[in-house]
Amino acid sequence: MRETAGMATDTGDPAPSGRPATSVDVARLAGVSQATVSYVLNDAPGVTISEATRARVRAAAEELGYAPDASARTLRTGRSDIVLMPLPATPMGALVLSLLNELVERLREHRLTLALYGDARSRGVAAARDWMRWRPAAVLVETDRLTAASVRRLHDGGCATVIGFGPAPSPLVPTMVIDDGAIGACAAGHLLGRGRRDLAAIVPAEPGLDAYGARRLAGVTAAAERAGAVARRVDLPFDEDAAAWLAADWATGTGRPDGVFAYNDEYAMLLVRALQDAGLDVPRDVAVVGADDLPLGRFLRPRLSTVRVAGDVTAAGLAGRLARMVAERDRDPAVTVSLTRVEMVPRESS
Amino acid sequence: MRETAGMATDTGDPAPSGRPATSVDVARLAGVSQATVSYVLNDAPGVTISEATRARVRAAAEELGYAPDASARTLRTGRSDIVLMPLPATPMGALVLSLLNELVERLREHRLTLALYGDARSRGVAAARDWMRWRPAAVLVETDRLTAASVRRLHDGGCATVIGFGPAPSPLVPTMVIDDGAIGACAAGHLLGRGRRDLAAIVPAEPGLDAYGARRLAGVTAAAERAGAVARRVDLPFDEDAAAWLAADWATGTGRPDGVFAYNDEYAMLLVRALQDAGLDVPRDVAVVGADDLPLGRFLRPRLSTVRVAGDVTAAGLAGRLARMVAERDRDPAVTVSLTRVEMVPRESS
Repeated sequence: MRETAGMATDTGDPAPSGRPATSVDVARLAGVSQATVSYVLNDAPGVTISEATRARVRAAAEELGYAPDASARTLRTGRSDIVLMPLPATPMGALVLSLLNELVERLREHRLTLALYGDARSRGVAAARDWMRWRPAAVLVETDRLTAASVRRLHDGGCATVIGFGPAPSPLVPTMVIDDGAIGACAAGHLLGRGRRDLAAIVPAEPGLDAYGARRLAGVTAAAERAGAVARRVDLPFDEDAAAWLAADWATGTGRPDGVFAYNDEYAMLLVRALQDAGLDVPRDVAVVGADDLPLGRFLRPRLSTVRVAGDVTAAGLAGRLARMVAERDRDPAVTVSLTRVEMVPRESS
Repeated sequence: MRETAGMATDTGDPAPSGRPATSVDVARLAGVSQATVSYVLNDAPGVTISEATRARVRAAAEELGYAPDASARTLRTGRSDIVLMPLPATPMGALVLSLLNELVERLREHRLTLALYGDARSRGVAAARDWMRWRPAAVLVETDRLTAASVRRLHDGGCATVIGFGPAPSPLVPTMVIDDGAIGACAAGHLLGRGRRDLAAIVPAEPGLDAYGARRLAGVTAAAERAGAVARRVDLPFDEDAAAWLAADWATGTGRPDGVFAYNDEYAMLLVRALQDAGLDVPRDVAVVGADDLPLGRFLRPRLSTVRVAGDVTAAGLAGRLARMVAERDRDPAVTVSLTRVEMVPRESS
């Protein structure tokens, strides 16, 4: 058995040395039509071809080192198997990345491949024109980069569906909603339920994270207002000195909150450490809740209360849904999938 | 200015409604050849075309909503702009994923797009045939999935370069080396330097991680042997009860090591907590070193000593290097790039 197309010429095979074999070469060697080669090698459904012919085609393809060409298929059908995902403007966090890891594997079961496109800024029609170079089956992109004209252009260009993701449903496309407000509301509900009335929400000072922090704060504020309590915003960089300064202020001053949603577990750990160093007791003086349910939170003393955030869908479910939307050209903006199901994990810090 | 190809027909533009415009339509509207359209829209280097003609072509393309088609270009040139990365068998860790985030953005500056392919198992010629469907400019894949025949097939199929990544340089292709042994050796060198002679290395019990753990252990063992000290392997799942059991054994038994490399910061935090709960003093009774330099390590008491792992190359550097290897068809297996430069960060736990 030869391994390369280049070596095939020494027995007079139809693929001349120096160029990759084509489906025409395979058809000639197998004694079938080019269409048959295409049917067999692409596992086309609903086509009746004898097992003997299939075996002959596969043997010829193997002999010539022929691989079907995705771009030929794209030109023929006007659409590739690519799900194009322009990079989000905010670097993807651990949650999104771990989902992505498995999503990529599951998409393959539906013959779809994820292409990450390194363009985190362009939006509107200029972006759509750029993305269309790939003739993507679907585009997966932040909602705030889409305009009505850009969505129209993608659809007209043959893209089966454009799927947005963002903090709220888009009026233009089906959306995967990442609801940071629900995370804050969950933490606040827990703190209020434990009798805390003077809440604070940490908003990370780091650019990029601050927008998520502000949305989580909004959830805290709304929950507090509904309960007749108050909530304030506390901007904090992920920095020991800044946390120490804040803790010292709370230890000596009069403006100390009795319950804090600390944005996530990492900020919560930073804050708990600083509060303890400043002589405050957690949770007696200040209750602290994080988010993400990092395993490390269980090893702290006190053990960290946290909001667990899980997808409403598994990667397998999401891949299946994406594949179905591509197959059915589902473009209904009324469709939303929540990627944030929240659940309170009460421990000792609150 | 119209936004979609579909709307263009109402003024008699050459692109009929219902199908995306082609470069032939653009050439007709601009009154130039199809080749000129291709040169202008692909920014082909070394071609002299007047600015007036370029402007006319761009205006026509904008008018018709024409986007160049990557697959047409692929068929013409035999190679796409895709860097194909089959998913690694082990889920990508935080370090790799954060590098990937920026790598994708930097690759675009070189007109390359990263496609993640959800195939974490196939290897050899069967895998190569599958990957060749994309006519990738480069394939980025774990070295243990490559065979001489598969590399030959990829090269013969038009792939400019195959780049491996793995724990050691491949004899087949240029390799990005991820040297876990160096991480263990760095931690052990530090512990030995502080007078510890009875070392242990934690190997995570989790499948996937255990292979990395074994390589880090090998680095610890080699360093210990060179210094006339000993090192032993301790398998540990990421679990509080298991850590408590181990700590109780070390607190009461006679087989307690005096220095532990705990695989990474998370395992180190788990272990330190368990040792303290068992009444042992860190570092007096047992010195503990982690790896990864997680920010949280600085907030522990004692502050966690750790091995900082950084790439020898930045994402920008790596993207530039990849692009150069593609352009020059660099296939020299003697080329290796280290992705793990280690540096000891001594704190209070050791």
